[in-house]
Amino acid sequence: MAEYLKMEAEELEHEFSAVRKKYNELLSLNLSLDMSRGKPNFDNMDLCDEVFTAVTKESGYKTLAGVDCRNYGGMDGLPEAKALFAEIFGVEPSQVIVGGNSSLSMMFDTVAQGMTHGFGEGAWGKQDNIKFICPAPGYDRHFAVTEHFGIELLYVPMTENGPDMDMVEELCRDASVKGMWCVPKYSNPEGITFSDETVRRMAALKPAAKDFRIFWDNAYAVHDLYDEGDDLLNIYDECVKAGNPDLVFMFTSTSKITFPGAGIAAQAASPNNIAMIKSRLQYQTIGPDKLNQLRHLRFLPDMAAVKNQMKKHAEILRPKFESVLEELEKQLFDTGIARWTKPRGGYFISLYVLEGTAKRVEELCKAAGMVLTPAGATYPYGKDPYNSNIRIAPSFPSVEEIKKAAEVLCVAVRYAALEKLIGKC
Amino acid sequence: MAEYLKMEAEELEHEFSAVRKKYNELLSLNLSLDMSRGKPNFDNMDLCDEVFTAVTKESGYKTLAGVDCRNYGGMDGLPEAKALFAEIFGVEPSQVIVGGNSSLSMMFDTVAQGMTHGFGEGAWGKQDNIKFICPAPGYDRHFAVTEHFGIELLYVPMTENGPDMDMVEELCRDASVKGMWCVPKYSNPEGITFSDETVRRMAALKPAAKDFRIFWDNAYAVHDLYDEGDDLLNIYDECVKAGNPDLVFMFTSTSKITFPGAGIAAQAASPNNIAMIKSRLQYQTIGPDKLNQLRHLRFLPDMAAVKNQMKKHAEILRPKFESVLEELEKQLFDTGIARWTKPRGGYFISLYVLEGTAKRVEELCKAAGMVLTPAGATYPYGKDPYNSNIRIAPSFPSVEEIKKAAEVLCVAVRYAALEKLIGKC
Repeated sequence: MAEYLKMEAEELEHEFSAVRKKYNELLSLNLSLDMSRGKPNFDNMDLCDEVFTAVTKESGYKTLAGVDCRNYGGMDGLPEAKALFAEIFGVEPSQVIVGGNSSLSMMFDTVAQGMTHGFGEGAWGKQDNIKFICPAPGYDRHFAVTEHFGIELLYVPMTENGPDMDMVEELCRDASVKGMWCVPKYSNPEGITFSDETVRRMAALKPAAKDFRIFWDNAYAVHDLYDEGDDLLNIYDECVKAGNPDLVFMFTSTSKITFPGAGIAAQAASPNNIAMIKSRLQYQTIGPDKLNQLRHLRFLPDMAAVKNQMKKHAEILRPKFESVLEELEKQLFDTGIARWTKPRGGYFISLYVLEGTAKRVEELCKAAGMVLTPAGATYPYGKDPYNSNIRIAPSFPSVEEIKKAAEVLCVAVRYAALEKLIGKC
Repeated sequence: MAEYLKMEAEELEHEFSAVRKKYNELLSLNLSLDMSRGKPNFDNMDLCDEVFTAVTKESGYKTLAGVDCRNYGGMDGLPEAKALFAEIFGVEPSQVIVGGNSSLSMMFDTVAQGMTHGFGEGAWGKQDNIKFICPAPGYDRHFAVTEHFGIELLYVPMTENGPDMDMVEELCRDASVKGMWCVPKYSNPEGITFSDETVRRMAALKPAAKDFRIFWDNAYAVHDLYDEGDDLLNIYDECVKAGNPDLVFMFTSTSKITFPGAGIAAQAASPNNIAMIKSRLQYQTIGPDKLNQLRHLRFLPDMAAVKNQMKKHAEILRPKFESVLEELEKQLFDTGIARWTKPRGGYFISLYVLEGTAKRVEELCKAAGMVLTPAGATYPYGKDPYNSNIRIAPSFPSVEEIKKAAEVLCVAVRYAALEKLIGKC
């Protein structure tokens, strides 16, 4: 493979002819592939069959402490569920709220609370032009929540160590900047883990807005693909050290541990923040579905069980990631038109193609029967300033499908790059 | 039993002496009774054991239409669940959203949406001094939701046919009045069902605020105690007839059909209203817990199954209601100091004691080991203008406990009344 950027016009034409031929062959296969969504596959979910029968008449619907999980009550979740998530978050159980099946809902509701009640400094909704920092590429649904509430989205680029902290520190000087979205571990879609220095700088932020909050969506907290996973510094500990205990709201869920649509979600924060969340929750709910929490606790009684479960998931997911990475390596290595992340966990690989060609790659893939996450979707307002990033979600298709999908993708990346380079000649 | 209000001082003293003796006897029993909460008892919940095992690996986790209920998706609930609730609400399935385990959350979120986005006329939160009509006695948690958002609560008295509609019509002329709470069938805590005329007048309201909404919490839609239950007119049909299709948001749940804390909840409204709710939901959630919806659908596949289930509940609840009513009749009939409702369904009986004595009755009961819903709690801001109403929740204790509790209550009612009447002599 030669470096495209150094090719002469004739070489480019020659390469394009070969790539076009390959692409046309793929077109003729009438493929139907989908790498657009970070959904677990059936075989991942099949690992959790025991959840279904974890609570029965025979096994009983009470916790060991005697709580009847069928009835009302327990606004912040079962104590045993709080203890398990406390271990995942690295905080005290009293700092945890365990809710329903959707951590996105907890994040949405927390932003909504900011809008209507605020966090000690008045309702955000009564203030003009409030803003959120959105490191990108990031999780489109985070950005969408804040956009829904009319909050302005501020783009900050991701680096290999996390968000560009110089920019974050600068932006925080504006009192209308009220918060920041993060997926700190195996980030969506980068698959990278924030460095210790990034976490420390984040915890030490001195935002002009006293009610500035980091929304720390640790969705992939235990989602290693390899025995040796990434280590993420405990941001809450760092916040406490920096005298900033109220700076962060943390979130996670079992969506990718048990069932995406029927897991349990949790949030954690400082005692002060948790008290504020509870001051809303007491009006919002009769309490979460404790039976589903009990099902989960019986299936995953402790961290050892969680880790064991994640190893099984990894065995299914790892070959899918590796298939993509192998194909990227095979087709794009030293072409100079692409770079990509090599995640050690999570659900995504991030691919950067030749600037200005991501949307074209998406089109070419679509024409060949393969659905990608829409190019740009991982940026605020859906606009990638470089039209370069592509999110690869290898979890749902089978390994065979993934191999074919990666092949199509790489051919499309080369196709689009050559098209552009030739156009410039 | 003689009429207290007609007694001379000496007769009152004589009666008080007898009642005080009886009360002291009850005190000496060291009772521990609770009639404060509308919670189903274990035997009600035991009727639903089959829900636990309705979804297993063997029975499968797909709907008949093939939806895998474990994964993401289906923001507004399973189509089959929407169809079942559509029958309960009397609307089209497309007008229904089936959610998580808490209809209170759906109501809270709908009010929250009013605050941040409004319903076609701008965010309520951007307007000053907005108000909600609160027919009382009513459900304290309804009132609390609106109070939480800083909405002013307007007291409207309940009559035997529902809210005082003359007052409601008058209040609606004020454009800052944005909504109204209702429990239209077997109301909490009256146990009465709104008359056809009340429903029609409500549906024909012409509020000054175009974004005025009735929050129609039909929590006890199918909760008859007798074969012949109350009939509630379909408010949505009446709204359509009156040219007001967008006037009402309807809510219900299976909290008192299956499990209070782990049932499924639903809301229904006009296509226009539902589109507005979905415009929020798409940002708020990854979808409800479809596995729990599937469990419920397998346990309660159709209205016949629901009705059959409710008959079983009624067999457990009816003797509890009748025990209370018998004791009220026995001790308070023709004393002239109390009146009460005689519900044919729902979870509550409403007792009106001599004006100015409800809080004293609560105290006397408490001293005798019996917890009542705090007097006044069923009124806006927790203030019963007549200090007269007591909510009786007979569902949770056993029949034996209920009999004893009703005895304590009636003795306390007489004690407090005599104390007051003697004080006036």
